[in-house]
Amino acid sequence: MKAILASTSTLHNQDYLEYLIPHLPVLYKNIEEIVFVPYARPGGISHDEYTSKAAEAFGKAGIRVKGIHEFETPVKAIQDAKGIFTGGGNTFLLVSELYRNKVMNVIKEVVKNGTPYMGTSAGTNIGGLSMKTTNDMPIVYPPSFQTLGLVPFNINPHYLDPDPNSEHKGETRETRIKEFHGLNSQPVIGLREGSWLELDDNKVTLKGELKARLFKKDKLPFEIETGTDLTDLN
Amino acid sequence: MKAILASTSTLHNQDYLEYLIPHLPVLYKNIEEIVFVPYARPGGISHDEYTSKAAEAFGKAGIRVKGIHEFETPVKAIQDAKGIFTGGGNTFLLVSELYRNKVMNVIKEVVKNGTPYMGTSAGTNIGGLSMKTTNDMPIVYPPSFQTLGLVPFNINPHYLDPDPNSEHKGETRETRIKEFHGLNSQPVIGLREGSWLELDDNKVTLKGELKARLFKKDKLPFEIETGTDLTDLN
Repeated sequence: MKAILASTSTLHNQDYLEYLIPHLPVLYKNIEEIVFVPYARPGGISHDEYTSKAAEAFGKAGIRVKGIHEFETPVKAIQDAKGIFTGGGNTFLLVSELYRNKVMNVIKEVVKNGTPYMGTSAGTNIGGLSMKTTNDMPIVYPPSFQTLGLVPFNINPHYLDPDPNSEHKGETRETRIKEFHGLNSQPVIGLREGSWLELDDNKVTLKGELKARLFKKDKLPFEIETGTDLTDLN
Repeated sequence: MKAILASTSTLHNQDYLEYLIPHLPVLYKNIEEIVFVPYARPGGISHDEYTSKAAEAFGKAGIRVKGIHEFETPVKAIQDAKGIFTGGGNTFLLVSELYRNKVMNVIKEVVKNGTPYMGTSAGTNIGGLSMKTTNDMPIVYPPSFQTLGLVPFNINPHYLDPDPNSEHKGETRETRIKEFHGLNSQPVIGLREGSWLELDDNKVTLKGELKARLFKKDKLPFEIETGTDLTDLN
């Protein structure tokens, strides 16, 4: 496998995908065109609008982008893809559409067989075993919460540390993940913005400048340094 | 119908249910004991622990509390209940357990026939048409997102205004609700902490000191004053 699973698409005061562009020619080596999955539709934008946005960013790395919806069938688009990028937005919508278009398992298969994959936000969330640690609103009912399982654990993108000054009584991210572990056993990695997981062959490494927060069932959460090998985390 | 659907159980620097206790003898008039639904298990606490917590608060209003899990069957507990209170926690877990125990429709029926109901947070979320505007993490896969529909719209509890100083790139609550309206047509009321909906006969009124924020499909969101009649909002 070759993949980048990034917490976010956009860092504060940067353009869309700006901090990831230098890594695209490495991930998508010698690839002229990739297939973009716009199903998560952030803010409800259309598949075409979202694909244009991805194409503009990938253009800076000399890579062309075609939306999965522009092909005759989504399954054939993925089967023939030289590389795949799944953008962020709403994870419930993304997962619903991947199942409805019968491509969830096809993406899993081609990526496990070597097709390079990048995800940001919702596109990263589905790289884990399930979407049960998404932060998104359940605006649509998907047929399952199971996702790609490119890594043997769950991912919480846009991980946010508790605000010690908050008077708001909604649950903190840490409380939510603790509730997840009341019903599920796999570890969860909280990826802060600017962090990503790099999958190279079967090695999984934490990348970016920040630490990540690791949550294991019945254990206190702890910080891990960038560069940490997470291949055997399960 | 007689119901209180409250955004939160606990205000900053107050005890559990403290601000709602003066309203309990009105809602549960002449009722000595109510049935508590602890299924949402905040922070993963047990049904017994959670029921004790509710009993302590209700005790201050002279009302006894028995957990739904303490009865022979959950269905009979609800059918015979003089009053019902559903506490907060994780909405996905609450809805899963309500369906698994076959009480979702029974609660709907008895409340529509006059059994007084109070919900806080997740217990309020299910008072709307669906749980699709919950803020919670999908830690378990429920058989449906449809809920009680005591009001003809959706509710977003713990409504949080966007933080103008935030550099975090996760979606704001307003963006999430806009995404909801890309796929769903019913209005959504964002209830700030300390606000609640009062249902009296078939009249629905916004209560508490704060305004609420109302979201309608394809319209700009707007503020509504406390005291506003929401009976015909749909």
